[in-house]
Amino acid sequence: MKDIGSEEFIMSTLQNKEVWEKTDRWDDKKVDIWFKSELKNGNQVGFGWSHEEPIVDLMKSYITSYNDLPRFVHQFQNKLRNETRAKSGVIRCREFIMKDMYAFCGSDEENMEFYNKSTEAYLKVFKRIGLGDITYVTSAAGGVFTDKFSHEFQTLCESGEDLIYVHKDNNIAINKEIYNEETVKKMGLEMNDFEEKKAAEVGNIFNFGTSKCEQMDLYFSDKEGNRKPVYLSSYGIGITRLMGVLVEVFHDDKGIIWPEAVAPFKKHLIVLGEDKEVVDAAEELYKKIIDNSEEVLFDDRTNVTAGAKFADADLIGIPQRLIISKKTLAENSVEVKERSSADSRLVPLTEMLAVVEGI
Amino acid sequence: MKDIGSEEFIMSTLQNKEVWEKTDRWDDKKVDIWFKSELKNGNQVGFGWSHEEPIVDLMKSYITSYNDLPRFVHQFQNKLRNETRAKSGVIRCREFIMKDMYAFCGSDEENMEFYNKSTEAYLKVFKRIGLGDITYVTSAAGGVFTDKFSHEFQTLCESGEDLIYVHKDNNIAINKEIYNEETVKKMGLEMNDFEEKKAAEVGNIFNFGTSKCEQMDLYFSDKEGNRKPVYLSSYGIGITRLMGVLVEVFHDDKGIIWPEAVAPFKKHLIVLGEDKEVVDAAEELYKKIIDNSEEVLFDDRTNVTAGAKFADADLIGIPQRLIISKKTLAENSVEVKERSSADSRLVPLTEMLAVVEGI
Repeated sequence: MKDIGSEEFIMSTLQNKEVWEKTDRWDDKKVDIWFKSELKNGNQVGFGWSHEEPIVDLMKSYITSYNDLPRFVHQFQNKLRNETRAKSGVIRCREFIMKDMYAFCGSDEENMEFYNKSTEAYLKVFKRIGLGDITYVTSAAGGVFTDKFSHEFQTLCESGEDLIYVHKDNNIAINKEIYNEETVKKMGLEMNDFEEKKAAEVGNIFNFGTSKCEQMDLYFSDKEGNRKPVYLSSYGIGITRLMGVLVEVFHDDKGIIWPEAVAPFKKHLIVLGEDKEVVDAAEELYKKIIDNSEEVLFDDRTNVTAGAKFADADLIGIPQRLIISKKTLAENSVEVKERSSADSRLVPLTEMLAVVEGI
Repeated sequence: MKDIGSEEFIMSTLQNKEVWEKTDRWDDKKVDIWFKSELKNGNQVGFGWSHEEPIVDLMKSYITSYNDLPRFVHQFQNKLRNETRAKSGVIRCREFIMKDMYAFCGSDEENMEFYNKSTEAYLKVFKRIGLGDITYVTSAAGGVFTDKFSHEFQTLCESGEDLIYVHKDNNIAINKEIYNEETVKKMGLEMNDFEEKKAAEVGNIFNFGTSKCEQMDLYFSDKEGNRKPVYLSSYGIGITRLMGVLVEVFHDDKGIIWPEAVAPFKKHLIVLGEDKEVVDAAEELYKKIIDNSEEVLFDDRTNVTAGAKFADADLIGIPQRLIISKKTLAENSVEVKERSSADSRLVPLTEMLAVVEGI
């Protein structure tokens, strides 16, 4: 996000009724996922399920002139949504972390430039975590956010809640909610070339044009001194859900297979047995890895069988498993196995230490 | 926290009624700062103002035997408290970040050992951010958390809400709420040696003994197979409030003076004028600083006077201000000024680049 010019910040969970009333999104009949409570003085307070209204309100203090534009900000923040049915674990839950980004621009052109740049950045993110080949930029209705078309990032996934139509040649898709002859023709494509798939929405981007800022009275003076409404677009990645989708996509019957880019640890070091020599060798390797700022999970439990340690390692799904035992030490080696492969190999300890130290 | 053996994790904002009823802390008459709302099915849900109950509940899945103890965990998490009066900016607000840590131990001795270790760690934190000399370990009542004595970390501060009695020789204090002849005598001290001061509570630590775990049914089997309640102590630092206290303590009439350890940036680079030579030199220095992973705020605004830039720099309070202008470049230098001092000096650009590159 920083590479495309966005600054990180964070907004509050607590939400002002007045701010959301300006766009008529406080009313439970308009937005049915609000959690609300009451202050001691009887005033209502909401809990943030989205942050478009408060960021536009906040930006009134920072944007008055064309000199202040464009402005891009993003946060990693906890959203609270009063879903009727929380389901599929972290795929749909009432509390989750979202990365949300907001672009404030002085013209449609500037806004669209950032919209396209962000689309590329998002695709890069999904590619880096291994979902590139099964994640599609998908045309969708605006939903509660906007009455224009929007774009979703949909990842093919059996436990996904959405149905999308994927084009057989192009790297695009259309959400079922707007999939019809008219939409397809507008895109210059044929309905026969689309195939229905189940997918999970892992990101979405919305172009509000000037509508939201007009509603909320966010205007700026252009170079000629004319008062003009600010262009707004918003960009979200559902971090928590994405974690669930990753597990749905990358697993086998033994457990998770974390992609390296998002694995909680890079290595899972297991020591077998309690012989001093073995434990010392494992401790030495552990310290070397830590000293070189690599992330390693060290299973030095003494009251657990080898089988249980292997099963736990498979379940947790760290990309690389290292085993040190009497057997491997007899060959001055450590056993190395990738979680994604069935084969293991012996690597001389000296070589492993050199790799860890980046020599 | 990691140095004393704690693992970082994070808990949810949403809270289960049932968990808090076990200790009778769901009732608004017992705890008057709850924010509560309702799920779609009519069930009540709370918003976390503390996380002692949920962490004890969670630990039931992880602690069953002496092998599982001790266990230390901490989080940086957003607390929500329905305060009657939010005041003094971030010193007392309804939403704030807390670092809370929890220790689960098998014996009083183990628990007290961690209690003392944490006290030392906390004092180290306050020392590192420049509050060491005016922050006191203060004896206090247990408050809503416990009926035993607890300890607060109180920082002398005119806008603080607490009154504490500081001993003239020892590095300790007593909160007004328990300051009386009896308490002082118990400590083997004299009332004459204490002086009343205004202070802000920046941290607190509580020893629950086994009471909380007994209430919530968290027991473990010791080596002999006996069922015993787990010892619990909890440790908090109010990060958001601490930021406010830092500003109260470190400021002058021009603005904030951030201590280096917590400054949002280490350097504030200002370029004056729009001559290509000057701007290029500033950009080069900026890139060098960034490349060496130092944090720098770069004021390259072109529509702002030098005076306004200086005033903003003083207001924001970054520890070191660097100025590049036609005047400084005439001497191949950059002007360097610490925010905490009135004096500036010229440093040759070559020397500054070498310092930045750590040569």
